[in-house]
Amino acid sequence: MPIADRLQRMRPSYIRDILRAASADNVLSLAGGLPALELFPMRQIEAAMQTVGKQAQLFQYGETRGYPPLLDYLRDLLAIPADHDLLISNGSQQGLDLIARAFLNPGDVVVVEAPCYLGALQVFELADAAVRLVAQTPQGPDLQQLESLFAAGDVRLFYAVPDFHNPTGICWSLATRERVAALCEQFGVLLVEDAPYRNLRFAGEELPLVAAALPSQALVLRSSSKISTPGMRLGMVSGPRQFIDALVLVKQAADLHTNVPLQAALLEVISQASFPRHLARLRVCYRRRYRALLGALQAQGWQPAAVCGGMFVWLELEDIDARALAAEALRCGVAVVPGEAFYPADVAVRPALRLNFTHCNEQAIEEAVARLAVAIETLQRQDAG
Amino acid sequence: MPIADRLQRMRPSYIRDILRAASADNVLSLAGGLPALELFPMRQIEAAMQTVGKQAQLFQYGETRGYPPLLDYLRDLLAIPADHDLLISNGSQQGLDLIARAFLNPGDVVVVEAPCYLGALQVFELADAAVRLVAQTPQGPDLQQLESLFAAGDVRLFYAVPDFHNPTGICWSLATRERVAALCEQFGVLLVEDAPYRNLRFAGEELPLVAAALPSQALVLRSSSKISTPGMRLGMVSGPRQFIDALVLVKQAADLHTNVPLQAALLEVISQASFPRHLARLRVCYRRRYRALLGALQAQGWQPAAVCGGMFVWLELEDIDARALAAEALRCGVAVVPGEAFYPADVAVRPALRLNFTHCNEQAIEEAVARLAVAIETLQRQDAG
Repeated sequence: MPIADRLQRMRPSYIRDILRAASADNVLSLAGGLPALELFPMRQIEAAMQTVGKQAQLFQYGETRGYPPLLDYLRDLLAIPADHDLLISNGSQQGLDLIARAFLNPGDVVVVEAPCYLGALQVFELADAAVRLVAQTPQGPDLQQLESLFAAGDVRLFYAVPDFHNPTGICWSLATRERVAALCEQFGVLLVEDAPYRNLRFAGEELPLVAAALPSQALVLRSSSKISTPGMRLGMVSGPRQFIDALVLVKQAADLHTNVPLQAALLEVISQASFPRHLARLRVCYRRRYRALLGALQAQGWQPAAVCGGMFVWLELEDIDARALAAEALRCGVAVVPGEAFYPADVAVRPALRLNFTHCNEQAIEEAVARLAVAIETLQRQDAG
Repeated sequence: MPIADRLQRMRPSYIRDILRAASADNVLSLAGGLPALELFPMRQIEAAMQTVGKQAQLFQYGETRGYPPLLDYLRDLLAIPADHDLLISNGSQQGLDLIARAFLNPGDVVVVEAPCYLGALQVFELADAAVRLVAQTPQGPDLQQLESLFAAGDVRLFYAVPDFHNPTGICWSLATRERVAALCEQFGVLLVEDAPYRNLRFAGEELPLVAAALPSQALVLRSSSKISTPGMRLGMVSGPRQFIDALVLVKQAADLHTNVPLQAALLEVISQASFPRHLARLRVCYRRRYRALLGALQAQGWQPAAVCGGMFVWLELEDIDARALAAEALRCGVAVVPGEAFYPADVAVRPALRLNFTHCNEQAIEEAVARLAVAIETLQRQDAG
């Protein structure tokens, strides 16, 4: 039984293969985008699961848009305007997939930052979109290149992660945010702003969503994965009501609705008066781990770009095959992701690694970097030999 | 922001609109496919939710294929052959959507029974498939017509509900099952066997899955919605390993994986020694309710086709507009679904109603049929007047 054409072009997620290897007992993982399990708000979750388990009506069929009390809470918390709406999805990954299915015809042009979140590349591949890349600067996308891309023709959608980008950790400047919003408006491009890391800022001042300056032409993806737990798979899409209505139509066919019990449990967890303290603890811990990673890398003579939040550091390398390095690193007991995993298959890329600092504690991070140094040495010795 | 072409052709689910109206306090609903809430195994669910809520690792990212202990349990329970595999989906609705995305190119021909489960029609519309209809007989699809359809050309996929079909309640005879398997094999058609009601047989003898006679060319959709609870949104797809691998690739892009906590909770619930007793109670209750519905309809002079399980009775009508009747019935305080909701938009259909017998208890069913009789009388008086 041959599979559909679009699937024959898709690569399986290299990261998920690495993650599987990284789960071996003796491997330290800087590879995944895994939040710290020991910081999951389990006391609140346990209580929430108990409460939810007593309510039979939460186990009946629910609404496609989401569990109404959770929607009401989030509309208020996120100050969703009256002419906008919200949809609850199975993680923000599903939100992005629904957007692609609702708004893209095959061949439509989509612009993404290079490098780009792999899950987004997969969604656009599956949608048969024509993906164009805009380079990143430390302030965000290269604005001149973005304008050229938009001006060159029918760009339908710009997918971006302005806050603590995956994989580079870059956070867009205010000027970049304003300019991107203006360009999207000028050229009629739908902005899809993916904001899973926005609550994980541990330095500097919060900047507005790009979508805030583009209310009629942007969809925002939010996730509970990084602030509560990823295993619940709960994300949110917000934007103009008629856009959300289109997503609801696709979601009806895609899976009827997101499960109700975990939506009710999430509401229990995030509406606790103590939840902001949980977020503060998370940020303090991640800042400590980030500093441990930065210090360990610097001690080896490496200089990754500094980040102000999120989960990742991007380490550019010279004269080394990043994919071979990742393989050697795994043999040395540390999992990392080579930069090329974050580009479409046919793009030439400069060697780099994405390093996660949220999953391992400081001690493990230091040991992981030491193992990475051994892997690099081994590889260089092989090249020299 | 115009929506994608495929979406402009889609109708929102008429049933979900009716369900919303049916949730008004004074309305008795024979409309939805809702299982009896008062029979949810809540004691087991409450205990399972407590157990799950204590285990942080169940809230971390999981595997795309599903929660391994649940997969292992189901492989064993369902006697999945060694060269087959399983995928856990967000309800079997997602399983069907993944199949369409993995195996259908735009324009591919799909055959469905007429009438057909509305959610399947939506999936195939979204996949840009060319849908062809095969008529139903009391023994299942019209085999001559099915052979003609298959022989006429490139039929890629046959979607069917052989056990207690939605909306008609028809259960295929053994001879029909064997013949359909042979035809699929002869013409190289992928069979998608949707079996959500298979455990809800309350009369007659269990018949084999059609897929059992077509192991290398069939995918089976199963659901926990009708035997445990629908709000959890957990379904399963099984079939040849390379087919499941293709679905895993699509699911990775669609939502990474199904939530882990409810997969773990479902395993706790269905692996209890007492679970078969729960199923037995369910069947006894549904048989009682079915008989109440049948009796009440017969008392009004109506003769719906008898069913041996499932959730629905199909009532064919004469000289009446079923859609107008459903609207009048709602005014009289009973929700029903007109038959045309189960056909593609452009098909002429004989007037019929789908009546559910699992959601309301016997007393409510009798009252609902009385209200339906009033609605029909009102409509006939209007026609005469």
